[in-house]
Amino acid sequence: MSDSSKRGFSLGVDYGTNSVRALIVDNDDGEEIASGVCDYPSGDHGVLLDPKDPNLARQNPADYLDGFYYSVSEAIRAAKRRRGFRPEKIVGIGVDTTGSTPMPVDRDGMPLALRPAFRKNLAAQAWLWKDHTSHKEAAEITAAAARSKRGYLARCGGAYSSEWFWSKILHCRRTATQVFDAAYAWVELADFIPAWLTGRLGPDTLPRGICAAGHKAMYHAEWGGLPDERLLASLDPELPRIRQRYASPALAANQPAGRLTAEIAARVGLPAGVPVAVGALDAHTGAVGAGIRPGALVKIIGTSTCDMMVARSDRELPDVPGLCGVVPDSIVPGMYGLEAGQSAVGDIFNWFVNRLAPNNGHGGGHETLTCEAAKLGPGESGLLALDWNNGNRTILVDPLLTGMLVGQTLHTTAAEVYRALIEATAFGAMTIINRFEEYGLTVREVVNCGGIAEKNPLVMQIYADVCSRPMKVSRSGQTCALGAAIFGAVVGGAYPSVEQAQRKMTGVRAQVYRPRKAAAAVYAELYRLYRRMHDAFGTQGCGESLYPVMKELIAIRDRARNGTA
Amino acid sequence: MSDSSKRGFSLGVDYGTNSVRALIVDNDDGEEIASGVCDYPSGDHGVLLDPKDPNLARQNPADYLDGFYYSVSEAIRAAKRRRGFRPEKIVGIGVDTTGSTPMPVDRDGMPLALRPAFRKNLAAQAWLWKDHTSHKEAAEITAAAARSKRGYLARCGGAYSSEWFWSKILHCRRTATQVFDAAYAWVELADFIPAWLTGRLGPDTLPRGICAAGHKAMYHAEWGGLPDERLLASLDPELPRIRQRYASPALAANQPAGRLTAEIAARVGLPAGVPVAVGALDAHTGAVGAGIRPGALVKIIGTSTCDMMVARSDRELPDVPGLCGVVPDSIVPGMYGLEAGQSAVGDIFNWFVNRLAPNNGHGGGHETLTCEAAKLGPGESGLLALDWNNGNRTILVDPLLTGMLVGQTLHTTAAEVYRALIEATAFGAMTIINRFEEYGLTVREVVNCGGIAEKNPLVMQIYADVCSRPMKVSRSGQTCALGAAIFGAVVGGAYPSVEQAQRKMTGVRAQVYRPRKAAAAVYAELYRLYRRMHDAFGTQGCGESLYPVMKELIAIRDRARNGTA
Repeated sequence: MSDSSKRGFSLGVDYGTNSVRALIVDNDDGEEIASGVCDYPSGDHGVLLDPKDPNLARQNPADYLDGFYYSVSEAIRAAKRRRGFRPEKIVGIGVDTTGSTPMPVDRDGMPLALRPAFRKNLAAQAWLWKDHTSHKEAAEITAAAARSKRGYLARCGGAYSSEWFWSKILHCRRTATQVFDAAYAWVELADFIPAWLTGRLGPDTLPRGICAAGHKAMYHAEWGGLPDERLLASLDPELPRIRQRYASPALAANQPAGRLTAEIAARVGLPAGVPVAVGALDAHTGAVGAGIRPGALVKIIGTSTCDMMVARSDRELPDVPGLCGVVPDSIVPGMYGLEAGQSAVGDIFNWFVNRLAPNNGHGGGHETLTCEAAKLGPGESGLLALDWNNGNRTILVDPLLTGMLVGQTLHTTAAEVYRALIEATAFGAMTIINRFEEYGLTVREVVNCGGIAEKNPLVMQIYADVCSRPMKVSRSGQTCALGAAIFGAVVGGAYPSVEQAQRKMTGVRAQVYRPRKAAAAVYAELYRLYRRMHDAFGTQGCGESLYPVMKELIAIRDRARNGTA
Repeated sequence: MSDSSKRGFSLGVDYGTNSVRALIVDNDDGEEIASGVCDYPSGDHGVLLDPKDPNLARQNPADYLDGFYYSVSEAIRAAKRRRGFRPEKIVGIGVDTTGSTPMPVDRDGMPLALRPAFRKNLAAQAWLWKDHTSHKEAAEITAAAARSKRGYLARCGGAYSSEWFWSKILHCRRTATQVFDAAYAWVELADFIPAWLTGRLGPDTLPRGICAAGHKAMYHAEWGGLPDERLLASLDPELPRIRQRYASPALAANQPAGRLTAEIAARVGLPAGVPVAVGALDAHTGAVGAGIRPGALVKIIGTSTCDMMVARSDRELPDVPGLCGVVPDSIVPGMYGLEAGQSAVGDIFNWFVNRLAPNNGHGGGHETLTCEAAKLGPGESGLLALDWNNGNRTILVDPLLTGMLVGQTLHTTAAEVYRALIEATAFGAMTIINRFEEYGLTVREVVNCGGIAEKNPLVMQIYADVCSRPMKVSRSGQTCALGAAIFGAVVGGAYPSVEQAQRKMTGVRAQVYRPRKAAAAVYAELYRLYRRMHDAFGTQGCGESLYPVMKELIAIRDRARNGTA
């Protein structure tokens, strides 16, 4: 931190799946000077579950309000210990959240779930991004959109997801009429928080962010905003009402949503009136915080991944099948934002360690298995896995896919399976890179962020070897919150543009994981087999024989073990 | 035991993979009155391993001699406590062993490994049945036999195995010339023991059993015994010598090999001169001890399975592709003996419990997982596995196949995988039954034996449901040793034929596992998917699309969970 910050500080507030984090950043150089975290008190690590339905995942909106008060107060308190900081020096606030996480609100814009009558009603809570109860409605929306002449589907990768805005609302309409009828409107969490902070909750005029609108609600300027009323009415006559109560145009996150209300400011120790940016989704601010720019792929690796790119908007972009969306201004304003992702990465490793092989590493879990797996060479296990335990987001856009493991013998160890699962996620990552490049989006560098990227060198080295590209790691451990803070800095006037703020406030670590030639050669062979399995199970194309798969895995294994690979 | 046995007693000696068991049986009713067990002292549970080569599995021949002395002495000692028993009442001895387990012997017929110069030489030991070092030689023999006009391969299922006699000898010739040159002949363990017991070790005249000869050494009366010298010479000019020192014709186990020598008799407390039957392989005597007869499939379920049938020799049998052999007199003299099998069953369950998920059941291992798996319904896990962790013996005859698991999600539990592995072995069992029936060998009853059949009702119930047939369990827990004892009874004159002895001395338990209609219906669906995977990975046929596999597993799972299956 510079002794006396010239550009002041900004506050980024990042609403994750299990907790909310407030981060105070020096606008001069991006140094993260203080943070505060609040684990959501409700449910299972913040997630409300239904023992009868594993697809259900909701959140208590009260946690969002309490979480803000607690985490921001903590961050301010910690920052005050730093010389040169005073709360008055905070020039702006940015907010990012998970999404699509919509919630039903009343005429005043307050969540229905806060009313006593709905407090225990799961349908009245926030529908967390990973809620998959709406898969039938998603298929229905996809079918209806496909019949339309508009390019609705092309802009969201060819299929509408059960994780998204309209699927969830339609499912609520179908299964919880009482809640649907009581709701005046539906608001994304990413929009709700800035609106609440700035006292602009009235649903009809509440500022909506382009990020959630474009990637999750089929909003596009090309067709005048949300999908047209005829399409919505064909799904349910009540849906057009939701569209009517959704302010247009949706805004980029470098726009202010308003100014912090005196009441909230007083509770957390901030000055009233600080500008608050329009909200964005966590992966998008994460990409900004990792220094995304044209040619750079930012991989945010957590329980799942988001794979983000931007492209200058002075060129015509092709529709890229299988992407989660191509939305102008959704990441860096002024550029197209492109989002892809893997439905499970860390979640697969966690599944293996917690569900299948607990104590296999004699209590060591991830650490022991990683240590053992690191001793193995590429191909040596003879195993190959598909990384679809939670379906496939990109490039197949199919939640009804599952995991697969092939090649196990009577000697196969847990560490070998663990490594095969890591490799499977690397092959999934490679498939996304290939898809971008097939459509003319050259990937000149890969910047990784998230806990796994920071803490697991084995995973990063395997990714470098499999993708045959250097893997960089973001300097910040909190790129989502940092990205939110960058938007705060921009709406606060510290920089005229996101790109200029990024140049000063983001960066990568000195250590780069570089591909090793011999390992890359083995993985090139294995990737061909992965694609064979990927296409056999994941596409309807005519079946290529899988007879060679087991044979070739054994041959690769034997060469690897004999050191002749 | 009848108070005063009219037909006397017989002794069966069963040489397993880890131990030798001596069983004394009442010839009147098959009651097992006493037994003695000796765990082989050498190696890892009796198996000599090579840390550099997981395919290697040898045994120390000294263990066989010491094992006989110890186990038989123990059995005699225990039997003496029973009223009505005296060693003089033992009318005959039968022997069964693992196989193909050949060993190099000197001019006197004694194992080379017993000489100090070869004591530590792994190639000079007995080459245990599960030694897979010779897979290249097996492929070479298969190719050479395929070029011949003789029906060599048709009689052993279409491929010669790396587990068998000639593969091992040829591999020794190629990799351990010193041992090969020092060996006067090669003798199967099943032939060695009776020859040693009766003092008929001279290799040129040593009685050879039809069981090992026919199933493992390509011996067939049709072509005058072992494969002709030209074929053997084409593999290696030294091989014809092995053929020349192999007495013909090979004999059925209802023939006497000779009489017990005074020296050995004295050491174990038996009278000298007791008749000893020609040796047989354990699966074959096991089938006899389980009461095999035309129309009955005997499944010997252990680490792997042997699936045995007999057919009257008054009909012409077709060649059945994928069987391990069709050999006259090899099980019940006067009938064709047919052997099929699964390369791993108990070994797969052990692999999962020991290697992948130790302590998953919080220390309970098999018991806890079985208990949890029993709570699941067919199809409920959404999982499907292939039972090929040790290759596929029947019907694909391919050691270069591996395991496969598909359908796993982030919620998949260890118990679900455990059940899927059990089901996979049941599907493998069903595939063998189907193969027999496709070639006109109707399976009218299934009799199971071995530890898993006796101790794991879940496995038996799943087999009944998957195969949609009642599963019977043999009354005897030691069918291999009992079968050997039956051959002892026959050569001792207690019965004129094996069939007559079986009628009195074998039987099944009263409890029969019967197929449940609803479960069988779900498994019929799953079996279709299993065959799809089986054919996709195991055959060179043109690929049928696997796209529906994951989808259908999910649909079956959802129906199973909602009780609408």
